[in-house]
Amino acid sequence: MNFDEEIRVRVCRIEDVLKKYLPPESGLQKTVLEAMNYAVNAGGKRLRPMLMSECAALFGGAPKKLLEPFMAAIEMIHTYSLIHDDLPALDNDDYRRGRKTTHVVYGEAMAILAGDGLLNYAYETAAKALMAAGSSELPAAAKAMAVLAQKPGIYGMIGGQVVDVERTGQPLEADVLNFIYTNKTSALIQCAMMIGAILAGAEQKAVAAVESAADKIGIAFQIQDDILDVTGSPETLGKPVGSDEKNEKTTYVTLMGPEAAGRRVSELSMEALGILEDMGLSEKNPFLKRLILWLIHRNK
Amino acid sequence: MNFDEEIRVRVCRIEDVLKKYLPPESGLQKTVLEAMNYAVNAGGKRLRPMLMSECAALFGGAPKKLLEPFMAAIEMIHTYSLIHDDLPALDNDDYRRGRKTTHVVYGEAMAILAGDGLLNYAYETAAKALMAAGSSELPAAAKAMAVLAQKPGIYGMIGGQVVDVERTGQPLEADVLNFIYTNKTSALIQCAMMIGAILAGAEQKAVAAVESAADKIGIAFQIQDDILDVTGSPETLGKPVGSDEKNEKTTYVTLMGPEAAGRRVSELSMEALGILEDMGLSEKNPFLKRLILWLIHRNK
Repeated sequence: MNFDEEIRVRVCRIEDVLKKYLPPESGLQKTVLEAMNYAVNAGGKRLRPMLMSECAALFGGAPKKLLEPFMAAIEMIHTYSLIHDDLPALDNDDYRRGRKTTHVVYGEAMAILAGDGLLNYAYETAAKALMAAGSSELPAAAKAMAVLAQKPGIYGMIGGQVVDVERTGQPLEADVLNFIYTNKTSALIQCAMMIGAILAGAEQKAVAAVESAADKIGIAFQIQDDILDVTGSPETLGKPVGSDEKNEKTTYVTLMGPEAAGRRVSELSMEALGILEDMGLSEKNPFLKRLILWLIHRNK
Repeated sequence: MNFDEEIRVRVCRIEDVLKKYLPPESGLQKTVLEAMNYAVNAGGKRLRPMLMSECAALFGGAPKKLLEPFMAAIEMIHTYSLIHDDLPALDNDDYRRGRKTTHVVYGEAMAILAGDGLLNYAYETAAKALMAAGSSELPAAAKAMAVLAQKPGIYGMIGGQVVDVERTGQPLEADVLNFIYTNKTSALIQCAMMIGAILAGAEQKAVAAVESAADKIGIAFQIQDDILDVTGSPETLGKPVGSDEKNEKTTYVTLMGPEAAGRRVSELSMEALGILEDMGLSEKNPFLKRLILWLIHRNK
């Protein structure tokens, strides 16, 4: 199997897990359930559940009854954040991945409630792992729940989103840009990889190392996004380039130029892989290594 | 101490717990933290944490390190629901309890994010109880987390809110009205009382009985609201009466008339107290009995 096929197989498996945990569209509150499922079923790379599951594999694997609810939960959290980001009061986006956004299809009130519903249902779903855990598994499941509640929150993803929204249209200092990247992008990648490690029984020191590697992966991913906006081709990307410059947006490229930004991506990538190599990455999960390299060095 | 003083003492204690668990207003994401605290500090009766703590007392009490994070968490969830309900796309309310609503003070984008922040932080706060629990306490803390994630969600509070929003301005059948009351109002009261019982070590059968009593208390509370809108005095209520009729809103009073609605309140109240009396309510927590009677039969 080549890399594309390996990805496709995994995406299929993740979508089966999502189907299993998304709510059936019945009951008087049906509309909100449809809106939630519409948003989750918009597709996407399913990166976060994939990183969670691959990171669990790196540490010897985790029981399905624990891993699957958390995989579904993190995708629900990612999706709720997209629904709310797209709202008229925030980014006011009518389309995402070529489909109408949730508020365009279901109205603004229902989109707010669908976002709330997904965020809350993520914890309800993860709590199924707590209830399924045997007594020797419960401490790890509880620790995973704590990470699931921390990284997407006000000291993680929401924190980054708040600063991004407040500072839109203003020039940013390097430390502010770094805060946004670390919180808005890296936090959920850390969340995914740390939970995978925790559920597989990794020790605290290893989980902390994974947290640090995931931060670097997230920042490198985001800088690569900035670089592609300057050097990418609109045909390959499937979207116009040069939008950051047009919008006078501060990015790593505007702060340090494309060459230095490219060097930073390579450095971060080397550092992250170095950390994971100490845990036997190449030997124990070569697919995860390729996945990380692809994420960071992608041309689209 | 008279009843009013007993309430005041408890409200003070709960506000100390909230202060302990609300985020300090610092960091680059400071604005959202201020908006969250602004909404939580708007006051209110702190009913849900009070019911949680009193229900724990009914079953012999629960360790502070477990009870307090959950008390703070349920008030955060209640508050996030008010912030999002008040948004222009939903009820579009500019004032609540005589103060400007969160979106009026902080803007719509920040109010959406503050609501998300509080909902998420509720789970982050409750997870502190999971991390503080000793191994013999962890199963109860995990069960409490599952209830905290279920009752406010799509099969609880959000579900009720969705139907209420969708059916606004339409005449409602009795089963739809009951769905809305049970989910929009009772679910969080069930959540509060069940978690109190669970953390105090109540058995599953007792928790189920509390769940049923709390449902009746919530519905009776809501019907009493309908009755006060017809029979109350604007001076005592501090708000205009007759608004349900003016807005052609279906309520228990419009469905069955004020006398039958009043009888229903009495029936539900007797049933709920009967259930709790089997657990020794009058003897073990007379304050909780007075609190429930006051909630149901209040004249404001």
